Amino acid sequence: MKVDIYLTPYPFKDIPKKGKAVVAIDVLRSSTSTCAALINGAKGVIPSPGSVEAGEMRSKIGSDISLLAGEKDNVKIENFDLGNSPAEFTEDLVKNKLIIMTTSNGTAIFGMAHNAELIICGALVNISKVAEKVAGTNLDLAIVCAGQKGGFSIEDTICAGMLIHTLNVKHHIETELNDAGDLALLLYRTNKTTLVKVIQQGEHGRRLAYDGFAEDVAKATAVDSIPVLPVMAYGRLVVENL
Amino acid sequence: MKVDIYLTPYPFKDIPKKGKAVVAIDVLRSSTSTCAALINGAKGVIPSPGSVEAGEMRSKIGSDISLLAGEKDNVKIENFDLGNSPAEFTEDLVKNKLIIMTTSNGTAIFGMAHNAELIICGALVNISKVAEKVAGTNLDLAIVCAGQKGGFSIEDTICAGMLIHTLNVKHHIETELNDAGDLALLLYRTNKTTLVKVIQQGEHGRRLAYDGFAEDVAKATAVDSIPVLPVMAYGRLVVENL
Repeated sequence: MKVDIYLTPYPFKDIPKKGKAVVAIDVLRSSTSTCAALINGAKGVIPSPGSVEAGEMRSKIGSDISLLAGEKDNVKIENFDLGNSPAEFTEDLVKNKLIIMTTSNGTAIFGMAHNAELIICGALVNISKVAEKVAGTNLDLAIVCAGQKGGFSIEDTICAGMLIHTLNVKHHIETELNDAGDLALLLYRTNKTTLVKVIQQGEHGRRLAYDGFAEDVAKATAVDSIPVLPVMAYGRLVVENL
Repeated sequence: MKVDIYLTPYPFKDIPKKGKAVVAIDVLRSSTSTCAALINGAKGVIPSPGSVEAGEMRSKIGSDISLLAGEKDNVKIENFDLGNSPAEFTEDLVKNKLIIMTTSNGTAIFGMAHNAELIICGALVNISKVAEKVAGTNLDLAIVCAGQKGGFSIEDTICAGMLIHTLNVKHHIETELNDAGDLALLLYRTNKTTLVKVIQQGEHGRRLAYDGFAEDVAKATAVDSIPVLPVMAYGRLVVENL
């Protein structure tokens, strides 16, 4: 299987996506929050490029069946119902609702990937589900890391490396990697026994702890703790039952 | 010493540079070609953001004392005197000339770095010179990799890692790294005994070989083969004699 990793969305923007499977990864925190929302019964998560577009979308859908979620610089956007902490997406709040989500790094990838064959939202909390789905396709794979402020993020790259490792080891799939793929695999294999610590001590992990979101980092690094598979269908991420 | 690495120029663009030392790295090939030009007696290398600006600059300076050098997608720009192969910058051609250079990935960094305290052009061919200079300053350091088409490049990241390793091991300088710095150091240390092969087999190395520039890759990976220190002074890169 041909697997190209993008350490940030920027170089992914202009490549052809047709016929590919795309896994979008934003471990801290939008991918993790999306999994939390869907496992707690949300009808779907609609990624939105910005807060204005999210507001417009909500007006169209109606506020009775939708919620606005998202952050800018880690903080909940004013007038939004929810921020970007996975713990906020409780069954009480999200069940049967459509969540319109916009975040600093992660949600933009879905817009870039729109004409891919299959689009999956990947995180550490659902990594085995993602690997299982990808392993069952014959598609070339692009793994796109959200990164942090346009740059590399250690948690997304480790997660991408873990996905490749899982494809190799658990699903016995040989992967033909780009240079960034080799790097991600190296990073994962070097840190796999200290995954949580490495991510907690990374730039974004430290920043979130400083801003009062240490619990989110703990939740986001709990591998396979939210076994759900969000796939894009008609502009929204919904649960696919394998 | 605080050392931040940027795997691509994009996230470096908006950070404050004042009071910092910046090392710009484009192993394949503009940093290597700059070193070649300067060791062969060029008066200076003027990084230019694009071919139009380069042409305008040449009109101002005069074609008797200047040369246009550069590539777009690895190929020499039409009507330019030189491409971007280090071997082209012979003493015969470049001695006492000002080289106006524009390339796909590397030259843009200098524009972004303009108000830094110290700006150095770094490559594998002059890595010890760069480390020696940086070790003698008390400045915070930003190492900016040119990357490839907006994405990560293995050769620049390995070179950045080698610079940190040299500071640590040869100059006994403790470095406080960002996440990308940890990654670059890991990548260098994992590959240091097979450096040339890893870069030759990387995406950009393979692409250059395919385009007929395999010799350039060999030259660019010959560590410390061009012991010259290009530093920015008044908008041009000139040799600093330590």
